[in-house]
Amino acid sequence: MIYDVIVIGKGPAGISCAIYTTRANLKTLVIGKSDSMLLKADKIENYYGFENPIGGKELLDTGLKQALRLGAQIVDDEVVSIEKTEKFRVISVNGEYEATTVLLATGAPVVRVPVKNIDKFEGSGVSYCTTCDGFFYRNKKVGVLGYTDFAIHEANELAAFTQDITIYTNNMPLNISENLNESLSKFKVNTAKIAEIQGQEKIEEIVFADGSKELVQGLFVAYGSASSTSFALKMGIATEGKSITVNDKMETNIPGLFAAGDCTGVFKQISVAVGQGAIASRQMIDYVRKTGKDG
Amino acid sequence: MIYDVIVIGKGPAGISCAIYTTRANLKTLVIGKSDSMLLKADKIENYYGFENPIGGKELLDTGLKQALRLGAQIVDDEVVSIEKTEKFRVISVNGEYEATTVLLATGAPVVRVPVKNIDKFEGSGVSYCTTCDGFFYRNKKVGVLGYTDFAIHEANELAAFTQDITIYTNNMPLNISENLNESLSKFKVNTAKIAEIQGQEKIEEIVFADGSKELVQGLFVAYGSASSTSFALKMGIATEGKSITVNDKMETNIPGLFAAGDCTGVFKQISVAVGQGAIASRQMIDYVRKTGKDG
Repeated sequence: MIYDVIVIGKGPAGISCAIYTTRANLKTLVIGKSDSMLLKADKIENYYGFENPIGGKELLDTGLKQALRLGAQIVDDEVVSIEKTEKFRVISVNGEYEATTVLLATGAPVVRVPVKNIDKFEGSGVSYCTTCDGFFYRNKKVGVLGYTDFAIHEANELAAFTQDITIYTNNMPLNISENLNESLSKFKVNTAKIAEIQGQEKIEEIVFADGSKELVQGLFVAYGSASSTSFALKMGIATEGKSITVNDKMETNIPGLFAAGDCTGVFKQISVAVGQGAIASRQMIDYVRKTGKDG
Repeated sequence: MIYDVIVIGKGPAGISCAIYTTRANLKTLVIGKSDSMLLKADKIENYYGFENPIGGKELLDTGLKQALRLGAQIVDDEVVSIEKTEKFRVISVNGEYEATTVLLATGAPVVRVPVKNIDKFEGSGVSYCTTCDGFFYRNKKVGVLGYTDFAIHEANELAAFTQDITIYTNNMPLNISENLNESLSKFKVNTAKIAEIQGQEKIEEIVFADGSKELVQGLFVAYGSASSTSFALKMGIATEGKSITVNDKMETNIPGLFAAGDCTGVFKQISVAVGQGAIASRQMIDYVRKTGKDG
């Protein structure tokens, strides 16, 4: 089964796009975790069409129902990787899907990782992209900073290069899907709270809150959900800072791959995300019709 | 009273903008006629956030209530002209207002005027801009094609150049505000249905459905409501075809003047209009704060 459209992210941008593509009779799959920033929004009153304030969760739920009613498929899952061959292969924790076009609508880049000095060592041992940088760490001692399926996925990628991999959760409880337990068993896990990263020119050690230390030669950040930016780095998508670069048609620099909503770094508002999702949908519909539906 | 923001048009783009500027504590006035294309939309199901289809009128009404609740002022009136001095002077049928910034959100350009050959004589006697072209018709016999307040406004503008002015309604009933009746009395009115425009290189005569003819040397189109494009032509705003040219911040080429929604000619969807209104609002808020609020 090849989808015409896979939307990654089920917030306003993603669902707005899916509503349009579904109504245009394109086979549309939405894959996302329930982790929208909107869940924290108690009262929204600046999104057109609601006389009284609406809760973020209520709006998200209504959007999902709207897309389902129109025929979109929605799965609650975490996408950890996208590959472009002839089509796009979208790999999630629980499955693998193929599509002619993909929309990245994963929301704002991951919240700042709350570890002191992490920014300082970016590019000097701290990396956000196993595919880009894993190769440099052959047979070295590396860490993955994270606690979710995404962290396991990244650790698995690194396992091609080195066997000495520790997952550092920084005091977060491990939150791993059952089918990844076997993978998890291949790695060391350290759940201690991190105080800071230390090193001279490059990262050298992780210092924990209790004063203990561990040496590492590389630290890969996979904290929380995979953000658009991490996909972007792997696929060679153009970015500006932590945002995906799009043109006014919501096209990225990779044909068939689009982005909308907060991950594009435009004014981060529901209104804007919904509009961008609609604009992207029109281009995706054109793209599918040009390259041949189902083919 | 100088407004920080005047929004022209009370559809999704205009109201979305007004919601943001009002919440940002800017004095915001919305001026518009109830003539949105959405009034004809029986069922809308592609605007994010509504599980079941919603009627166009219902959505418009809800939007108005939302903006009013947040503190926007809304008047039902037709803007016929905008002038830029230090501030903007916005002239409507029933009033005159001043503002630091203006948003054009007047919807799609006026529907095609249903008169044969009108396109053929554009620039050859057929004009959409009395301010631009009135001067060329000094003491000539001119017509104004229209039936609303906007037509009277245009005829009044032409009265500075010529006394021989006929309003051609093309079988539409005259629909003029009471306070314009005195103006109306200065002009001839012909309500016959028009069959076509004729002429060699320039317009020469109007041929009516009953076979009768009238000579004219110029015909000014002011059919229906004043569209953004007619404002644009008068003010020297850059346009592409019948759409207002905006950059990705919704800025026109005139500082302080913005445009959003269908009049910008982007994908004509509620979703997009609402997003553009929000983006414009952010720039307008910046603009007002920079140039000095109230000042």
